[in-house]
Amino acid sequence: MLLNPLLLEIGSHEIEVAETLIAVGRYLIIFVAARALAELMVRLQLPTILGELVAGVLIGASGLHLILPPETHAQLNGFLQSTLASLSGLLPDQVSSLYNETFPNLQSVSTLGLYALLFLTGLESELDQLVAVGVQATTVACTGVILPFAMGTAGLYYLFHVPLIPAIFAGAAMTATSIGITASVFGELKFLKTREGQTVIGAAVLDDILGIVILAVVVALAGGEGFSVGPILKLLTSAGVFVAAALFLSRTAAPAFDWLIEWLKAPGDVVVAAFVVLTFCCFAAQAIGLEAALGAFAAGLILSSSKCSHEIQETAKPLVALFATIFFVLIGSGMDLSVLNPLDPANREGLVVALFLLVVAIAGKVAAGWSYFSKEKTNRLVVGIGMMPRGEVGLIFLGLGTQAGLLTPALEAAILMMVIGTTFLAPVLLRLVLSGQTGGPDLDPLAEIPS
Amino acid sequence: MLLNPLLLEIGSHEIEVAETLIAVGRYLIIFVAARALAELMVRLQLPTILGELVAGVLIGASGLHLILPPETHAQLNGFLQSTLASLSGLLPDQVSSLYNETFPNLQSVSTLGLYALLFLTGLESELDQLVAVGVQATTVACTGVILPFAMGTAGLYYLFHVPLIPAIFAGAAMTATSIGITASVFGELKFLKTREGQTVIGAAVLDDILGIVILAVVVALAGGEGFSVGPILKLLTSAGVFVAAALFLSRTAAPAFDWLIEWLKAPGDVVVAAFVVLTFCCFAAQAIGLEAALGAFAAGLILSSSKCSHEIQETAKPLVALFATIFFVLIGSGMDLSVLNPLDPANREGLVVALFLLVVAIAGKVAAGWSYFSKEKTNRLVVGIGMMPRGEVGLIFLGLGTQAGLLTPALEAAILMMVIGTTFLAPVLLRLVLSGQTGGPDLDPLAEIPS
Repeated sequence: MLLNPLLLEIGSHEIEVAETLIAVGRYLIIFVAARALAELMVRLQLPTILGELVAGVLIGASGLHLILPPETHAQLNGFLQSTLASLSGLLPDQVSSLYNETFPNLQSVSTLGLYALLFLTGLESELDQLVAVGVQATTVACTGVILPFAMGTAGLYYLFHVPLIPAIFAGAAMTATSIGITASVFGELKFLKTREGQTVIGAAVLDDILGIVILAVVVALAGGEGFSVGPILKLLTSAGVFVAAALFLSRTAAPAFDWLIEWLKAPGDVVVAAFVVLTFCCFAAQAIGLEAALGAFAAGLILSSSKCSHEIQETAKPLVALFATIFFVLIGSGMDLSVLNPLDPANREGLVVALFLLVVAIAGKVAAGWSYFSKEKTNRLVVGIGMMPRGEVGLIFLGLGTQAGLLTPALEAAILMMVIGTTFLAPVLLRLVLSGQTGGPDLDPLAEIPS
Repeated sequence: MLLNPLLLEIGSHEIEVAETLIAVGRYLIIFVAARALAELMVRLQLPTILGELVAGVLIGASGLHLILPPETHAQLNGFLQSTLASLSGLLPDQVSSLYNETFPNLQSVSTLGLYALLFLTGLESELDQLVAVGVQATTVACTGVILPFAMGTAGLYYLFHVPLIPAIFAGAAMTATSIGITASVFGELKFLKTREGQTVIGAAVLDDILGIVILAVVVALAGGEGFSVGPILKLLTSAGVFVAAALFLSRTAAPAFDWLIEWLKAPGDVVVAAFVVLTFCCFAAQAIGLEAALGAFAAGLILSSSKCSHEIQETAKPLVALFATIFFVLIGSGMDLSVLNPLDPANREGLVVALFLLVVAIAGKVAAGWSYFSKEKTNRLVVGIGMMPRGEVGLIFLGLGTQAGLLTPALEAAILMMVIGTTFLAPVLLRLVLSGQTGGPDLDPLAEIPS
């Protein structure tokens, strides 16, 4: 019976219908919620990423149970479950198990979003600008990485007896600086071209590089044999070499890429070629024992000096708008915020840890504002607060730490509070500090710095 | 121990590393192969989609076994398997089973690509243009749908004793017309504005609508209780109402959408709002028992008259370039072409079926060129050949039929040959027929038709 079809299993059509409804329905819920909250945040003059996170919390394990990572072991929202069951003709329990079984599909799309975001971050790092404010930015960046990392890790380990690996991980999550949030507030208040603005942006680029290197090393170590000098040195060396190679290639490989683009004729050449570079760098990073995320960032750095850099950015943005949103919402949805409920005495220690992380995260970055030498009068408070928001980079740490199973729910929630707190406070404080000072005498606009 | 992390299972880090390497590696293989073959096709003046298909065949189950849908039950390429095993520290067998387990992630991304492609097809359907060549295009489209469908289904059922459902499905797969391939050849030879060009483009838009309605009905019926008048009428009615509603909304709902876009302020507003419309229509179509693919196409129709239509197209294109490519490559990779090996006598019947489908596919569409009434002299052969390429729309049928488990390997391969054959022959024959005639007397350029 050569041409006879395989007999359909009973119900396989129903299962396919249910899978489609679940997959499409999840996208719909995620984007409606994320968009609604993002719009609210824009109107409150707060970063939209806060909206996406809060949306995730509201529809996730600590909220409506609509978007529910299987790791949370929670029960799917009853209304959603019975709606999907009646539309697809399955039993509610079958819907739940299909929901859990297909959740990795959504997570893999969110990982694509993470890579796209880091790729775009790398693409947008203006390395020339970094050179222009070199020494000061480097000092601020290093202090702003070392202080929160050291204080956070030591505090968690010695004061709160958190095991070493999660303590180091939480410390590492505090090193990040979200360039986007500060840049948009600076831009809005016309401070982007000041010495303070340029220093913060330069330092944030460096922070990205340092932070992602630390992340790659910590995740690799955590999965391996634990902390000993040999592997640490080896990983630090490979990470250093990897980033150095990316920086070198961003100066030298771009012409080859541009030549390739010239030569390619089929439609979609730029986006496909950029995606090949991206996946190649991710593969290479993971293959030498680092994180694929570092590879995505390095791919962005490499292509940042291509002639097509602007075009690549434009094609990457829709991918980021869609898939990085899923990444942020999923982080929020997986959080168990009940561990922060102050009414439960068992949660006191967790709350204290969350508060501790927040204070260290603020103090460490603000102190960095005083760490550099300058002959001219600069507003060090503005620099310090500008370095404060952890934003998407802090969340990438949190997401990867959760994925790797490194963190307890309480520590996850504490890091989330630290990220939300700094991301929320930075624009509010910046507006407060800057609003009285527009064009004030202690600011030194450097209009000649290339933008 | 509130803040203690969950103990890592032994090897969970290795598994995560292997999963990342597999996921990223698959993307890399797919895009390098698809791009290489697409470039080759462009240089041969053939449609790039042929390159993506052939790339899939070369790296898939009939080729190098690098991209291997688990349904094929074939053995992963030994070199790839051992490379991934040595990079991740797993055993080769563990790599294979992880590869199979994570394959649905890739398939879900390819489904996103399918939706994005149909959404873009809907967006680009210029309904006004259709009205301008209304009657003639409608006649051509209907003949070009009915003839191949009836001849194909009846031939398979009566001559080759294929069961009814796969026979109908194969017949349905022959109704499609790929607008892109013909339009690009017409454009290249400056025939797009002729009466023939406009008729073909208009008929192709109608074919899309008719074909997707047939698809939605056939897939739903195949999964249900089989063929009886009640369900067929019900499905045809819902599909008709659904498409009519989309056409009505494309005239009326666009201003509401544009108002919403005006009102939205957070970044990424257009792409996210369009994605919400897309997922909503997919969900609605699937919820009333049709295919989500029909919803994606309807969403495109609805937004085609929005002021942002052009911007939405621009943001959808990178998604299509990346994810629809995966869809096409996966179709090629899942094919078992050994069933078409002419040296094996058991394959004779399958080969005859493939040849039959190809002849019917060509004859049915060419005949459609003679089906309309016109006072003016028109080149009916050009219209007929212009309707011939099945391209991406035929492949969507094939992909969904395979997913639904409706087809035998031999029938799948026969449909693939039909799609490849018509897609390959159409531009070649068009160039032959048209090259002698540029500006010839029997062509009637209608420069006043709006483009």
